[in-house]
Amino acid sequence: MTYCVGLQLERGLVFLADTRTNAGLDNISSYRKLYTWEEPGERTLMLMTAGNLATTQAVVSLLEERNLAPSERDPSLMSAPSMFQAARLIGQTLKDVIAQQRAGGPNAGSTFNATMIFGGQVKGGPPRLYMIYPEGNFVEAQTDTPFFQIGETKYGRPILVRAYDNDMDFAQGVKLLMVSFDSTIRANLSVGTPLDLQIYETDSLKLGYSRRILDTDEDWRAVSDGWSDALRQAFDSLPDVNL
Amino acid sequence: MTYCVGLQLERGLVFLADTRTNAGLDNISSYRKLYTWEEPGERTLMLMTAGNLATTQAVVSLLEERNLAPSERDPSLMSAPSMFQAARLIGQTLKDVIAQQRAGGPNAGSTFNATMIFGGQVKGGPPRLYMIYPEGNFVEAQTDTPFFQIGETKYGRPILVRAYDNDMDFAQGVKLLMVSFDSTIRANLSVGTPLDLQIYETDSLKLGYSRRILDTDEDWRAVSDGWSDALRQAFDSLPDVNL
Repeated sequence: MTYCVGLQLERGLVFLADTRTNAGLDNISSYRKLYTWEEPGERTLMLMTAGNLATTQAVVSLLEERNLAPSERDPSLMSAPSMFQAARLIGQTLKDVIAQQRAGGPNAGSTFNATMIFGGQVKGGPPRLYMIYPEGNFVEAQTDTPFFQIGETKYGRPILVRAYDNDMDFAQGVKLLMVSFDSTIRANLSVGTPLDLQIYETDSLKLGYSRRILDTDEDWRAVSDGWSDALRQAFDSLPDVNL
Repeated sequence: MTYCVGLQLERGLVFLADTRTNAGLDNISSYRKLYTWEEPGERTLMLMTAGNLATTQAVVSLLEERNLAPSERDPSLMSAPSMFQAARLIGQTLKDVIAQQRAGGPNAGSTFNATMIFGGQVKGGPPRLYMIYPEGNFVEAQTDTPFFQIGETKYGRPILVRAYDNDMDFAQGVKLLMVSFDSTIRANLSVGTPLDLQIYETDSLKLGYSRRILDTDEDWRAVSDGWSDALRQAFDSLPDVNL
């Protein structure tokens, strides 16, 4: 499994991705699932992937090959005129890769599937955040639903729904994602540290703060260790039930 | 879907079950999923069900028919010499019903399946809590894993793992389950009020406090409304992340 969240705030975007991949419980590895591209002052793009690793790596490799000579290989991520067109390109590439892997050979059915969160900004437009499906289509985050999750989404969702605030600063946004990841990692063995963090500040048109969060990371430990106590206090603060 | 939790405390057992059943999003109904049997001073049994409603109702009907004339229909729930033997009877009945529904006719595959939480006490033994699988086998709660969930288990699990305490009184146990149910109901449309609560006090050998919790229930509203604020305060109380 996987857990990745893309969060849309007033100030910008926050991406957090785990790195665990597994082919069975007895075969786990660590792979980066967060990819970034930038041309400072012109565009900044961030992509997180969940699903079949061969599929997601193939998609990213195809996208990067196109970037190498964008003038000859149009469209490419770096030449797409808008975030919407970039998302279409990723969706089409994803759909093509899945179709190609499914054609002929042993039929592994839906296991070739992958889902992606794509966000960033292209000069002239606002920051955008998309969720891209294996069918190649995609939806965009709006104020009613200001975040996307992929992979193991359920354990970490209640805190996102409850504590999210559009006005949060980046430190609060990262803390929120850390709590959501902590709940998930404690419940699902197939989600694990290290985590990859990437921040994008609205209209900066360059990659913002990033960090690889190891299991020993001080902030991560403070959130992870502190959350049990905080949650228990929150629970105690609720009025008693009358039986 | 469904959400039911059985909680084992030092003082006894707490059962909470939702009542929503659905055959598609456009066809929902309310059915009781919590069943109880007692012979005061001798045994008290509680059962919660998730899965195919035809299967679970058939199992309960078969178990109750056996109870009608236990002397002639041995074994029955009311004559089983121990909780373990009662759990075996339920598991075998469940397995038989599923096998019978699967045989011949249109093959709906695993949709005939059901899972159950069974708990209570038979005189001469301690209270016990079991999770019964569609295969007819079952596992018992122990101090390391003092609760069972069936149905939509993920949204409501983090708070159970974090806030459970073996020493809780019943009011705290019910509050804990209410928080867990609130997180689930907010996230999954196929879990809904009213909820059925049943408490069993260790060695009482009779049914304890029970209540049907409507959406307008004062305690339920207090927990549901209060939890957002409490959670947000808990979140704010965590140390800031240093970026």
